[in-house]
Amino acid sequence: MSATIDLNADLGESFGRWQLGDDDALLELVTSANVACGFHAGDPATLVRTCQAAAAGGVRVGAQVGYRDLAGFGRRFIDVSPQDLFADVVYQIGALDGIARTQGTRVAYVKPHGALYNTIVHHEEQAAAVVAAVRAVDESLPILGLPGSAVLAAARESGLRAVAEAFADRAYTADGVLVDRRRPGAVLNDAEAVAERVVAMVVTGRVRSIDGSDVEVTPDSVCLHGDSPGAVAMARAVRSALSTAGVRIASFLD
Amino acid sequence: MSATIDLNADLGESFGRWQLGDDDALLELVTSANVACGFHAGDPATLVRTCQAAAAGGVRVGAQVGYRDLAGFGRRFIDVSPQDLFADVVYQIGALDGIARTQGTRVAYVKPHGALYNTIVHHEEQAAAVVAAVRAVDESLPILGLPGSAVLAAARESGLRAVAEAFADRAYTADGVLVDRRRPGAVLNDAEAVAERVVAMVVTGRVRSIDGSDVEVTPDSVCLHGDSPGAVAMARAVRSALSTAGVRIASFLD
Amino acid sequence: MSATIDLNADLGESFGRWQLGDDDALLELVTSANVACGFHAGDPATLVRTCQAAAAGGVRVGAQVGYRDLAGFGRRFIDVSPQDLFADVVYQIGALDGIARTQGTRVAYVKPHGALYNTIVHHEEQAAAVVAAVRAVDESLPILGLPGSAVLAAARESGLRAVAEAFADRAYTADGVLVDRRRPGAVLNDAEAVAERVVAMVVTGRVRSIDGSDVEVTPDSVCLHGDSPGAVAMARAVRSALSTAGVRIASFLD
Amino acid sequence: MSATIDLNADLGESFGRWQLGDDDALLELVTSANVACGFHAGDPATLVRTCQAAAAGGVRVGAQVGYRDLAGFGRRFIDVSPQDLFADVVYQIGALDGIARTQGTRVAYVKPHGALYNTIVHHEEQAAAVVAAVRAVDESLPILGLPGSAVLAAARESGLRAVAEAFADRAYTADGVLVDRRRPGAVLNDAEAVAERVVAMVVTGRVRSIDGSDVEVTPDSVCLHGDSPGAVAMARAVRSALSTAGVRIASFLD
Repeated sequence: MSATIDLNADLGESFGRWQLGDDDALLELVTSANVACGFHAGDPATLVRTCQAAAAGGVRVGAQVGYRDLAGFGRRFIDVSPQDLFADVVYQIGALDGIARTQGTRVAYVKPHGALYNTIVHHEEQAAAVVAAVRAVDESLPILGLPGSAVLAAARESGLRAVAEAFADRAYTADGVLVDRRRPGAVLNDAEAVAERVVAMVVTGRVRSIDGSDVEVTPDSVCLHGDSPGAVAMARAVRSALSTAGVRIASFLD
Repeated sequence: MSATIDLNADLGESFGRWQLGDDDALLELVTSANVACGFHAGDPATLVRTCQAAAAGGVRVGAQVGYRDLAGFGRRFIDVSPQDLFADVVYQIGALDGIARTQGTRVAYVKPHGALYNTIVHHEEQAAAVVAAVRAVDESLPILGLPGSAVLAAARESGLRAVAEAFADRAYTADGVLVDRRRPGAVLNDAEAVAERVVAMVVTGRVRSIDGSDVEVTPDSVCLHGDSPGAVAMARAVRSALSTAGVRIASFLD
Repeated sequence: MSATIDLNADLGESFGRWQLGDDDALLELVTSANVACGFHAGDPATLVRTCQAAAAGGVRVGAQVGYRDLAGFGRRFIDVSPQDLFADVVYQIGALDGIARTQGTRVAYVKPHGALYNTIVHHEEQAAAVVAAVRAVDESLPILGLPGSAVLAAARESGLRAVAEAFADRAYTADGVLVDRRRPGAVLNDAEAVAERVVAMVVTGRVRSIDGSDVEVTPDSVCLHGDSPGAVAMARAVRSALSTAGVRIASFLD
Repeated sequence: MSATIDLNADLGESFGRWQLGDDDALLELVTSANVACGFHAGDPATLVRTCQAAAAGGVRVGAQVGYRDLAGFGRRFIDVSPQDLFADVVYQIGALDGIARTQGTRVAYVKPHGALYNTIVHHEEQAAAVVAAVRAVDESLPILGLPGSAVLAAARESGLRAVAEAFADRAYTADGVLVDRRRPGAVLNDAEAVAERVVAMVVTGRVRSIDGSDVEVTPDSVCLHGDSPGAVAMARAVRSALSTAGVRIASFLD
């Protein structure tokens, strides 16, 4: 029996005149597109184009919800109240879903973005607000997040599907958590090495930690970055290595 | 057989710390709530509260879509391209509908706001973009607009239901069009006189023009203003006069 | 020798269609106007009107700088980097000063707003960024803040004038710090009692704490709130009581 | 006696995460930097970096004021009232000047951006509002604009210096006005040909029109574009050709 893995990436993060990422190239490589919803990036016309291309390519659309912070690209923690966060998340999912439907697809899952993603690893109140918002919109929507995070725990508890993701280009500690970005070696740049690591995670459920020991990492989805130089080349290397290893690449919904 | 009329008003136009209008009072008086969608007014938490109250009161929710212009409250024409306007309108309807669903209701119609409303009386391209957006979201959504406007003509042509509205507190010319706001007498302030005029429109299909002649005005819905001093009192007077005249007050969808 | 005190209030916090506070009434009562700068409130046309009225009334204009967060009215902590905060503060002071100059006045001091105000009571990095920004603009600009705060300490250290303020309508603990807003009795509503307390602070340098003991409070300026019901009446009571007590009411700059 | 010309380009048009243009390269080629002011582009931290680099390179800083429209990059006409436009322009100049001062330079002129630039070629009311705003800030600030435009006429009339610019990469009609962008041949892409044309304008005051005839074009400044592929190469070619022709390249203020 062959292994299966989902590949996700952030897309639709242009805004008006400002272009970001090579969406067309990535849509040929991933199975799940985390599409921005307008609060940290993504003007409506960009979302139309991204959903259209995702639908055409058979790529699942996820709502990449974030803090309302264009200037900070959603990368700064905002101490928003649970009530406001609930409403902000519902608004964003609804907006993207409205656009997705006009392009023949639907929002199929939710992935929080940036500082919100990092905050709800541990911030119980904001995590609960995000989960409540997703549930209120549609109980069948999975949430993509970090294994062991408060948000995935809350999702599971409330009956939502929790999808654990790994990061292709990030080092892990011996305890199986991400190495802090500021430590040397935290971010991996070699496309072939990254590809090999992803194959290891998916096929064996284990990957070499930064300390040299093997650590268990068993993702439902692997996140590929889309907006750095070399991002597309790395995504291609990962996809190609997975195929070579006989891994089926498919959405976690298929 | 008794006449029936819908009463609509703009609601949900607060934004964060800034309150506008007496939504609670108006929701007891109207049958259709044109709820702001965040582009000219209406932060998500406000929309949640407004949709909740509308659902509780059995008031239909309409998407009050506008230009992206918080500083101008959507009252300034923006020369947005049809492609961008299409996307902006879909985004707004989707966002409000997402919120409405979490509160047990749905977006049931669309009413453009402010400068967009006025522009698509005559601007064929923007009118077509709005109609295309509404159709793309849901072909069963009616559009509320000015009788004789480009947008209602385009709506009808494309198979959408066009709902013609009259303005309770505005004077009409002998040709049945609104008197320019800047002319004296264009806006009526006397609640009883306004109430009487609305009854005349609804029961007889005719109202006294600014020139003294009778003119045909046969609305499907009558717009009450919500954000001026005396707005609630005027809305009460209209509703009460309609009831006394035996007119059934109901959504144009019921 | 008679005592002197400055009275400050937040002004210019309307935004486009949305009105907030009774600026005209407050400008007759205060000597320092903390004018919003557009990031948490205050569209440019509002700032023009507010500066014009402040100049006409001989009221000093302060730059009420805040986080970039219209939806949250600057009341939510944002984890902005010191570099970005430096730039945001300079931008806001410059913008308001540009407008003030066209109305015959100048930005004469800086008072951080809302969550930024509260954050830089203890957040050393953000406090340092605010101080660096003010210094970079003009070394002669005082900063208004909470006695004992990180920001006033940093201001003094870098050679800026630190102006300590007290809050007219807030209770103090026996240690001379503000009682947490969420505790009963933290916010005082009785205009006469508030007025008496302000006189006590200014004349004796002591006020009754929430525990019944006397505590030292020796402000350079007293903050009056402008946006609550009864705000203007309370401000009038304070001003009147100070006059009766023979206190001179004047800007801390005069 | 040698001819002198100013070269200007739009800079500081990044926004947060989104980068636009090669500011560092262009700052080595131009003598006037039209720096965005935050309304159509340019977050404050970007403006700090741009002003710092301009100051270091001895390049004059101009305030590139625009409509409040990040999503549209200031390229869409907005029917803003003269009062609001006045305030918006003052706010933007003040904000950029505040930042420029902290970096050891000053706003030395004003150049309207995008749709505002095009609108005030003919829109008398908006042109007057822009001129009034610039005058209110500082009567010594020149305005850069299109020869024959309403804004330059109004500037001259009110005693401001009007600086006429030509576009390096645009074709002219036999009447000396720009060929409509949508016509074939309106935009020139050949760097050497463009460089030759600029030399012709500056040295002889005449350039070949799209119809083949010679037409008078006598600019005080020549606009180079910064955000297209090949922009830097073209700017280099222009600068180099001017030097070869013995033209002095200097700010119109020097």
